[in-house]
Amino acid sequence: MKHILILNGPNINFTGLREKGVYGSQTFDDLTKMIQTEADQLGCQVRFVQSNHEGALIDAIQQAYLDHLDGIVFNPGGYTHTSVALHDAIASVPIPTIEVHMSNIHARESFRHVSMTASACRGQIVGFGFRGYLMALRELAQ
Amino acid sequence: MKHILILNGPNINFTGLREKGVYGSQTFDDLTKMIQTEADQLGCQVRFVQSNHEGALIDAIQQAYLDHLDGIVFNPGGYTHTSVALHDAIASVPIPTIEVHMSNIHARESFRHVSMTASACRGQIVGFGFRGYLMALRELAQ
Amino acid sequence: MKHILILNGPNINFTGLREKGVYGSQTFDDLTKMIQTEADQLGCQVRFVQSNHEGALIDAIQQAYLDHLDGIVFNPGGYTHTSVALHDAIASVPIPTIEVHMSNIHARESFRHVSMTASACRGQIVGFGFRGYLMALRELAQ
Amino acid sequence: MKHILILNGPNINFTGLREKGVYGSQTFDDLTKMIQTEADQLGCQVRFVQSNHEGALIDAIQQAYLDHLDGIVFNPGGYTHTSVALHDAIASVPIPTIEVHMSNIHARESFRHVSMTASACRGQIVGFGFRGYLMALRELAQ
Amino acid sequence: MKHILILNGPNINFTGLREKGVYGSQTFDDLTKMIQTEADQLGCQVRFVQSNHEGALIDAIQQAYLDHLDGIVFNPGGYTHTSVALHDAIASVPIPTIEVHMSNIHARESFRHVSMTASACRGQIVGFGFRGYLMALRELAQ
Amino acid sequence: MKHILILNGPNINFTGLREKGVYGSQTFDDLTKMIQTEADQLGCQVRFVQSNHEGALIDAIQQAYLDHLDGIVFNPGGYTHTSVALHDAIASVPIPTIEVHMSNIHARESFRHVSMTASACRGQIVGFGFRGYLMALRELAQ
Amino acid sequence: MKHILILNGPNINFTGLREKGVYGSQTFDDLTKMIQTEADQLGCQVRFVQSNHEGALIDAIQQAYLDHLDGIVFNPGGYTHTSVALHDAIASVPIPTIEVHMSNIHARESFRHVSMTASACRGQIVGFGFRGYLMALRELAQ
Amino acid sequence: MKHILILNGPNINFTGLREKGVYGSQTFDDLTKMIQTEADQLGCQVRFVQSNHEGALIDAIQQAYLDHLDGIVFNPGGYTHTSVALHDAIASVPIPTIEVHMSNIHARESFRHVSMTASACRGQIVGFGFRGYLMALRELAQ
Amino acid sequence: MKHILILNGPNINFTGLREKGVYGSQTFDDLTKMIQTEADQLGCQVRFVQSNHEGALIDAIQQAYLDHLDGIVFNPGGYTHTSVALHDAIASVPIPTIEVHMSNIHARESFRHVSMTASACRGQIVGFGFRGYLMALRELAQ
Amino acid sequence: MKHILILNGPNINFTGLREKGVYGSQTFDDLTKMIQTEADQLGCQVRFVQSNHEGALIDAIQQAYLDHLDGIVFNPGGYTHTSVALHDAIASVPIPTIEVHMSNIHARESFRHVSMTASACRGQIVGFGFRGYLMALRELAQ
Amino acid sequence: MKHILILNGPNINFTGLREKGVYGSQTFDDLTKMIQTEADQLGCQVRFVQSNHEGALIDAIQQAYLDHLDGIVFNPGGYTHTSVALHDAIASVPIPTIEVHMSNIHARESFRHVSMTASACRGQIVGFGFRGYLMALRELAQ
Amino acid sequence: MKHILILNGPNINFTGLREKGVYGSQTFDDLTKMIQTEADQLGCQVRFVQSNHEGALIDAIQQAYLDHLDGIVFNPGGYTHTSVALHDAIASVPIPTIEVHMSNIHARESFRHVSMTASACRGQIVGFGFRGYLMALRELAQ
Repeated sequence: MKHILILNGPNINFTGLREKGVYGSQTFDDLTKMIQTEADQLGCQVRFVQSNHEGALIDAIQQAYLDHLDGIVFNPGGYTHTSVALHDAIASVPIPTIEVHMSNIHARESFRHVSMTASACRGQIVGFGFRGYLMALRELAQ
Repeated sequence: MKHILILNGPNINFTGLREKGVYGSQTFDDLTKMIQTEADQLGCQVRFVQSNHEGALIDAIQQAYLDHLDGIVFNPGGYTHTSVALHDAIASVPIPTIEVHMSNIHARESFRHVSMTASACRGQIVGFGFRGYLMALRELAQ
Repeated sequence: MKHILILNGPNINFTGLREKGVYGSQTFDDLTKMIQTEADQLGCQVRFVQSNHEGALIDAIQQAYLDHLDGIVFNPGGYTHTSVALHDAIASVPIPTIEVHMSNIHARESFRHVSMTASACRGQIVGFGFRGYLMALRELAQ
Repeated sequence: MKHILILNGPNINFTGLREKGVYGSQTFDDLTKMIQTEADQLGCQVRFVQSNHEGALIDAIQQAYLDHLDGIVFNPGGYTHTSVALHDAIASVPIPTIEVHMSNIHARESFRHVSMTASACRGQIVGFGFRGYLMALRELAQ
Repeated sequence: MKHILILNGPNINFTGLREKGVYGSQTFDDLTKMIQTEADQLGCQVRFVQSNHEGALIDAIQQAYLDHLDGIVFNPGGYTHTSVALHDAIASVPIPTIEVHMSNIHARESFRHVSMTASACRGQIVGFGFRGYLMALRELAQ
Repeated sequence: MKHILILNGPNINFTGLREKGVYGSQTFDDLTKMIQTEADQLGCQVRFVQSNHEGALIDAIQQAYLDHLDGIVFNPGGYTHTSVALHDAIASVPIPTIEVHMSNIHARESFRHVSMTASACRGQIVGFGFRGYLMALRELAQ
Repeated sequence: MKHILILNGPNINFTGLREKGVYGSQTFDDLTKMIQTEADQLGCQVRFVQSNHEGALIDAIQQAYLDHLDGIVFNPGGYTHTSVALHDAIASVPIPTIEVHMSNIHARESFRHVSMTASACRGQIVGFGFRGYLMALRELAQ
Repeated sequence: MKHILILNGPNINFTGLREKGVYGSQTFDDLTKMIQTEADQLGCQVRFVQSNHEGALIDAIQQAYLDHLDGIVFNPGGYTHTSVALHDAIASVPIPTIEVHMSNIHARESFRHVSMTASACRGQIVGFGFRGYLMALRELAQ
Repeated sequence: MKHILILNGPNINFTGLREKGVYGSQTFDDLTKMIQTEADQLGCQVRFVQSNHEGALIDAIQQAYLDHLDGIVFNPGGYTHTSVALHDAIASVPIPTIEVHMSNIHARESFRHVSMTASACRGQIVGFGFRGYLMALRELAQ
Repeated sequence: MKHILILNGPNINFTGLREKGVYGSQTFDDLTKMIQTEADQLGCQVRFVQSNHEGALIDAIQQAYLDHLDGIVFNPGGYTHTSVALHDAIASVPIPTIEVHMSNIHARESFRHVSMTASACRGQIVGFGFRGYLMALRELAQ
Repeated sequence: MKHILILNGPNINFTGLREKGVYGSQTFDDLTKMIQTEADQLGCQVRFVQSNHEGALIDAIQQAYLDHLDGIVFNPGGYTHTSVALHDAIASVPIPTIEVHMSNIHARESFRHVSMTASACRGQIVGFGFRGYLMALRELAQ
Repeated sequence: MKHILILNGPNINFTGLREKGVYGSQTFDDLTKMIQTEADQLGCQVRFVQSNHEGALIDAIQQAYLDHLDGIVFNPGGYTHTSVALHDAIASVPIPTIEVHMSNIHARESFRHVSMTASACRGQIVGFGFRGYLMALRELAQ
């Protein structure tokens, strides 16, 4: 049985609260439940961590390594575009990591077009809303 | 029943021929079969177009519109990074389009880090090899 | 009697189909007829070529030279902003060429603000919709 | 009957004086007469303003608004490439404005390739010498 | 006996037609004959392909691979400076390729100073007019 | 009793005329009255200067020095982003100057994000509409 | 009665300790008292949060939302210039936020001239030392 | 007898007033007298124009042409670094023009390192304070 | 007796775990012991702080100030290249700080070539693995 | 009989010593002999100069002019990418010069992609190892 | 009596040899004599040093310091635009140095528009041919 | 016994002469003695080379190789920031090289922030004045 970390960065917990044009009206709670349901079907175990703290996200990645987790689904939020430290954290552990963005970052402000973290990940899934997490989870569950 | 265009750009037909470090050793033919199998399972019909010609890719997108297709899985290959014309072609038809890249473009040369076409697409799937096509196909088949 | 090539690049044939906010609701067919009518009034002969292929546009420019045409009205579409090859094609024939853009490219995305082809043309007409073609035609018909 | 402002920026009044390779040998006076003749034929009234002062050009645009003019043909000269203030002036009045450049700015020094003012205009006509003014006038006279 | 592809990109077929200051007055036909003569002397067989279509150039490179050719002399013309797709085509086949430019691209416009394709080639020969093709041919014939 | 110059740059006099989404519907006249009222309450004297001329704004700053004024509230309008001359004018007089922008320039076009003049000022107030002038006036009145 | 969050970012708590040339000699404690006094006069309630942690600042913004606060006075300190995450936090809650900088950031190192957070705020007040907080507070208290 | 225009741009009239570290303590009046004395010795006639208006400087250059003046000593002040219009004004008249800067612009802020106007001038003299005007005058008087 | 803070940023605690090509195979624990041994020999006291949290690193610098420590050996890890906040923290305390990097950052990815924090430090030691810490410690112990 | 200067820049004399992956294992001595043999066959005389000094390379170019040499084969080594002085030296003498690089500079670090010297040369030969010198020699010997 | 170093950089000794359009037809020898004549008239002693070696130019500056010279007239030629070492040499000695360029560098290639050395000099004289040296000499002779 | 080259670039021999604020008041002679003393204590032999000539520094690196030296302590001075040739020289010999800068280059002008040579070195020591040489020497002596 695979153990997967579902790691969410800053402001993802406020999804569905306000910028509904960008993210739709479902809430972060809905997202969590949807992932849990999918994980149950896939027969894998998920650990949820959300934090607005860059350091806490690195801590969670390191803890995943210490606990021998099998994969990470990671939405780094606003840290995506500038964080060398998160890039290094992903690169420093041998756990396959998939970067997920709910909105199509390429169709938003230009400072969101480049990802500093993606090069350390196995792959990246952009623009599929909540379903992006499920797609990533299925990949890692195989 | 959904009709999906599987559109592949330049050099994708030579996949598996040489740069095995980047793309693995399976061939373009293997990819086609894998997609056909998945399409059969999903109960949707796929049309395969591969061309090294930027114009032929635009023609295929326009034909998809004229034939009332329901979705496009598109790997623009080397045209990804510079083609305004392909961006415009995708934007000019109301067909949901998903951009797919087999390799993790963010971990390769810097001129591959930015996509000119992605902002006109619904989403983008990067780094999952052949399976990226299947992930996109399943999204569009829903 | 003057012979003029009306040369249209990628996606121009889909004008009026979708992005009506940008281009209005008239179709490419309407454009063709409007130009033909104007040509008849001006007493000049027009040849229509539209292609999504950058190479076909170059071919058409070279054919215009071989057929001793007197002028080219050219909307290079998405190739405007990057094509050195089209710039060279225009520069390599002694036919006066006028670049036309229906929308005001300066009021759109920044990657549309610069034209690679304009420096090889005699002039450029931007932002007048279909009428831009007529303005260019009248210039060349003199 | 339409009232049109013919607005010329810095150094346009010295046209024909020296850089004949770029602008030809006709003078600013010739330009004025040519426009007046065209205006008479079109049955519209023209007001001529030329100034080397950026502020005077803005004043003239504002006066055109206060006097209920119907259009502006504007050659901003050297202010084209840097003036945010002129951009704002055009944007702040509801009068259709057409930017005109006699020479092909795209074939000159690189600092002339971009226009700061064009995005606030309806359209732009580049490279047709004196005739560019007439083309613009005819557009506004319709 | 070696088989070499002589591959010419856009507008090379119009060499000698117009910009004689840059390329001299000999024609593309002269070039072809000169190469054929040299090939005969070297005892190698040459295949000539010229196209204004980026895709056709990629097709030709792929066909060279399928036909087991031994080398490619390639003048990508205006595609030199922007084409990721041609770069990928050259990189995807194990055929030694030499990039040739007749004029000294470093002494022309700045957008011609960088080559996107050269890094995938074995070498590059710049500025020797028609003779550059012969130098490349001799290298590949060894 | 303090004497303060209220200095407004290009197009500020047309505030409230057209781009109501950006500036609201109150007019420049309303602004003037609002400032006069505040000045009366603060017991300080205000001099109003508005000009579309960059040079006239410099003249006004120099005149403020010659007349021993105690402070300047300055909205340089479109000159904010490029004027070295206004920067130098502010720096050359020992009068405390506060830069004011009614709209949030950071949320508009990128060419409005940087101020050339602000580094010569004591402070900058951005995004508070008409009230920004009053905030600046109160600071200088102390 | 309005409830306002006074949010201070990294190193603001060390104000007055060392770089007295830049910030003056008053301490962070003095700042807090000055704000409290002003808040009492305005009849509004203030909550003080200072943290060196980017994540804690986001947490505080989210908590302000959950507690129905009416406004935020925010000095993001060194995070101003790079933090997409803080920009997103401000944008994700409907609370009016005013960015404050004690020193004139435009007169310091170039990496301080641009604010990543300001575009998500209602306004920005720069260069007024401690008083900038009071100006912001008064705006929000209205 | 030669007639020379001594043309000074924005803020030069306030020289000696404040930034004494940069320009020394002599005033603009002193400069004028020093130039007049030198002109008398050289037996040439000088016309003094100083304006803070970019347009007035262009007007003065054009007037110099109409009055058949023999040379221009020009300190464009803050307009040096951005004014295309002044560049064009100098280029449009056949009068030899020498650009003068009192301070060493290369040792000041980076936005002062490049001159937009110098390429249209015969030469440039930088960093010699008032004497730079005399050096230029002597050159033109020959 | 001197008290020195040994401050390590994100991911340094995972040194020796994975990227052995870059950092060698010794662990963070080995590093700590090696520093302690050296400190004992030098007769100085060391405090060890490692955190993945940018804010915690700032906290530690401020605490070092409050506890009157005599020096800081600081490896900011991935925060080196972007953190204005850490730069400000170092600049805001009068404790001599030495920046240390185990690997030669100049021989790695280009985004690691520039340090935002180094300009606030006394010096920087790059590329000596664990020994870099000892070199820094000896400097501060003098 | 033609006299040709074989001019080699910094570190070329250490070829074959160490970076064998880049340059192969033959030595500089082997290169010299190979060129001498070719020169003998071509019936031309060669002068060999190698120096690590930029100035000595300029001296050698000037001496070639004074001695009436007929051509220069020049590998400027690391000075290729930055030396304006070498560019000027080549441009200041009427001797045809061919730039040679043994490795494919376009496939190495980005700072080697641009040549400052090539625009002053007749042509450039890149990536053919030692044979590049022979190709250049044959060109000049004709 | 003042002792002045006349220091000329690379290729200046070949002035008048070839690029007569840029520098005129007088030779370096003529320049030397003209300077000697002026020095005799001014009653000052000149030392002439010309070298193509950047290091020799630095040596000459240092020797000037050791020999207590009173001024340096310096034309750094092609080293002007890139040499940090020459900038440092000038800055490290207390001898007033004037940078001279015979041609108008601002009207030539863009890589000649910026001077790395000028910021360390007292002033700069550009575009006056040989006379620029005399102007500089007179300044230093005072 | 180890043999170490102490290699100093341009202007380092003038240390202590003038810019005492940057380098302190000790002289180059003091530096040499200090290093000799340390070398004696370490039981290693040092060879001192200082030159203002880039080429001479390369010569010294090559000579160090030919003489089988064991290490190089290198302060490239002003050549640090631009010299590809020195980078190549260090990379072409298998001698461990440590780059040393006395001042903190990161706290000086921006053109000193990047080192072209450091990537070819083993490590870099910045900002420790004369002691930096001793630190480097001790590293190499081990």
